[in-house]
Amino acid sequence: MGGGGGAAEILPRTRPALDSTLVSRPRPLSGFPEYTPEQRVVEQHVLDRLRETFELHGFASIETRAVEPLDRLAKQGEIDKEVYAVQRLHADPDAKAELGLHFDLTVPFARYVLENSHQLAFPFRRYQIQKVWRGERPQEGRFREFTQADIDIVDNTTLAAHHDVELPLVTLHALERLYADLGLPPVLMRVNNRRLVQGFYAGLDITDTAAVLRQVDKLDKIGRDKVAELLTEQQGLTPTQTRACLELAEISTGDGSFVERVRALKVSDPELDAGLELLAAVVETARRHVPGRLVADLKIARGLDYYTGTVYETELVGFEGWGSVASGGRYDSLASDGKTTYPGVGLSIGVTRLLAPLFAGGLLTASRAVPTAVLVAVDDEESREAAIAVAEQLRGRGIATEVAPKADKYGKQIRYADRRRIPYVWFGAPPHSEVKDIRTGEQLPADPARWGPDPADLRPAVRGPADQQPV
Amino acid sequence: MGGGGGAAEILPRTRPALDSTLVSRPRPLSGFPEYTPEQRVVEQHVLDRLRETFELHGFASIETRAVEPLDRLAKQGEIDKEVYAVQRLHADPDAKAELGLHFDLTVPFARYVLENSHQLAFPFRRYQIQKVWRGERPQEGRFREFTQADIDIVDNTTLAAHHDVELPLVTLHALERLYADLGLPPVLMRVNNRRLVQGFYAGLDITDTAAVLRQVDKLDKIGRDKVAELLTEQQGLTPTQTRACLELAEISTGDGSFVERVRALKVSDPELDAGLELLAAVVETARRHVPGRLVADLKIARGLDYYTGTVYETELVGFEGWGSVASGGRYDSLASDGKTTYPGVGLSIGVTRLLAPLFAGGLLTASRAVPTAVLVAVDDEESREAAIAVAEQLRGRGIATEVAPKADKYGKQIRYADRRRIPYVWFGAPPHSEVKDIRTGEQLPADPARWGPDPADLRPAVRGPADQQPV
Repeated sequence: MGGGGGAAEILPRTRPALDSTLVSRPRPLSGFPEYTPEQRVVEQHVLDRLRETFELHGFASIETRAVEPLDRLAKQGEIDKEVYAVQRLHADPDAKAELGLHFDLTVPFARYVLENSHQLAFPFRRYQIQKVWRGERPQEGRFREFTQADIDIVDNTTLAAHHDVELPLVTLHALERLYADLGLPPVLMRVNNRRLVQGFYAGLDITDTAAVLRQVDKLDKIGRDKVAELLTEQQGLTPTQTRACLELAEISTGDGSFVERVRALKVSDPELDAGLELLAAVVETARRHVPGRLVADLKIARGLDYYTGTVYETELVGFEGWGSVASGGRYDSLASDGKTTYPGVGLSIGVTRLLAPLFAGGLLTASRAVPTAVLVAVDDEESREAAIAVAEQLRGRGIATEVAPKADKYGKQIRYADRRRIPYVWFGAPPHSEVKDIRTGEQLPADPARWGPDPADLRPAVRGPADQQPV
Repeated sequence: MGGGGGAAEILPRTRPALDSTLVSRPRPLSGFPEYTPEQRVVEQHVLDRLRETFELHGFASIETRAVEPLDRLAKQGEIDKEVYAVQRLHADPDAKAELGLHFDLTVPFARYVLENSHQLAFPFRRYQIQKVWRGERPQEGRFREFTQADIDIVDNTTLAAHHDVELPLVTLHALERLYADLGLPPVLMRVNNRRLVQGFYAGLDITDTAAVLRQVDKLDKIGRDKVAELLTEQQGLTPTQTRACLELAEISTGDGSFVERVRALKVSDPELDAGLELLAAVVETARRHVPGRLVADLKIARGLDYYTGTVYETELVGFEGWGSVASGGRYDSLASDGKTTYPGVGLSIGVTRLLAPLFAGGLLTASRAVPTAVLVAVDDEESREAAIAVAEQLRGRGIATEVAPKADKYGKQIRYADRRRIPYVWFGAPPHSEVKDIRTGEQLPADPARWGPDPADLRPAVRGPADQQPV
């Protein structure tokens, strides 16, 4: 509240607005999700597990500022229409905005690598969990502010191919913990490789890869026959070319057997060979370490026009229509300063996107919305000090504890705890203190220097759909 | 990297900019601090301890969106000049910006309370750790983007006085952990009470409290004689009034004895009495629970014009000139919707401000910039899979582990670890595996299912100035 800013000043630089003129409740801003305290407990559990998994795999945390120069947010001279520009409100009216809010964590990361290349050790492994902003027209499933959790490995010479295998493993380990620990739905990651597809098309003498991919990408929406029609009529492919493209797109396997199926199509090209080998390594390693969670899917087209090798996308099982919750790929040039080129491979987990359908369906809940495990009841204001002493003893032993705000009758203090789903209420000070489990009503003598709650009650627990019905 | 956004789309909505046109290293933006991975380790340690302390005291986490409607960031019809306005870059050129980045966490919290009042349990205890933005002209110690950690308690009727005692205790417990665990400097919190000062002035028949406080606030800068001159000549106080104001401002005690010293000035007023009692409770309770860290200081003037009771500010011992690192106070009306008024009391820790002088002086360091405790060496690419298996066993037991990116000679792999200050390198797979402490050179047989590092090496450790020279 207030400050942390500025030396003692009688006229502070910022004053909280007191909303005394308001006559109605403020309304949410569309596209800017805000959580209730209970939902925030769930989100914290998710973020903690992502962080822990990333750190166990040796990724260092960085954060970048929220803004980038607008010209850095541009692509080939064109500013993305979804960028939010940021400008001092009292800037010169003719002044052009020079800064924008970042719309992903890749652009800031690429800039950070260039800016700090002299003091980073390469290959550099980093994770980054931050909000990003996109000035979209709001609609279901689109957010203007949302949280992403990215991992990337970047090098300053070449970047070894085994990192393309490592990154999806780390991501799947992270998502697997959300499934196993919190009951979020399991995921399925679909992987493809641009060199494979491009080589295959080259072997078929197809030149406009991007245009063909754009049609193939419609398979799920309009079906095989319509796509065949478009490929023949709009892209001018021969029936043989069309059939081969569709047959490639239909290949999806959870092991290396896709290689044989591609070979059976009798197309040959050196880039195709390279792509097959890389993709087989990803799928086979994943099959051993995170079985059932990753498939080679040769129709995946998203990102193939800007990633240069492996591409990843990931669906929540049971919520496939919601789109990808973890996407990424490899860039041969994530960044370059003219002298050095930095290749990178990475994945971005859309945390807000992951949670949104589950929150919307009421499928993710916390056992309580407060960290508090124990409420220390207060007999009267004179004994508040003794209650504080009990609370400090419990906190010193890692037990989150509140002191009751009012020396009401015990029944009312218990209702205070009950309304917050705080499991225990403490009465009195040692040597005559007792603790009551207000769910069972059981009340027993207890010493604040030794008593502990049921370990399951120590922190709020999260319950997701996979807790109820194993998938 | 990339997405987490959108269903499969051949033309993704955002494309990372590849900086291939850049010819020079990008430069930092003034006022937007970014940390090296090592500094980020320090910041994470700090934030983790703040969060843990807040949760042990029963504060629930919330986050609010980064933007508020501009009219909410206004004060009495006037927009704060430091606000950053936010607008879609391709908005209608005549369109006025309607949103701004929040400049503190109090305004958004007040709005959140009004918006969610129907589903919050009061008194509502929340903490909030987020970035805030101020479009200031950059200068030393001023930031345009910085992190605050706020705790507040808000009620929907009256808010009990003991919360004015509780809040500084929680804050001091949090800051004490930074001192004890991380070696940050200790702090001194200075507390005053508006009712005390206003009552005292009223008892002296001084009416323009704010103007007098503005002069008294200059004591540290221009000294007692100059302030006396200003009070007499500019505010028109009598010599008796002037002397009394200065004598009050000189009172500062670490216990309740300030009450006697104020009484000795022979001014009487009912508000003065109320203020003395409230302030005495804060100081006496703090003396018992966090001895030596809090004083009543009756010259503290900052915030007395908008807080309505207790006010807090906090200096880092040894870095007093840097200004307050934790400030706050009580509002009788933190928010109001016309029907209900919500009183609150809170404190804000300026995390960026706290760390800035220590980083600038090179006084805060981490034992390493990566989470990794063990690097598993790789003999050749064929045995990478075995190295991954060792790494997974170690990670499963909570030990952050990387697999070496390249099957170089062992000496080179050890240098990879050394450059990152990773303490251990693992060789081979069981039953013939060994682990080397690369600081001592000691190498011993080890089983990945049982071996653990020295607990002090498990995570990066932080070392601050108070580790070197106890205060």
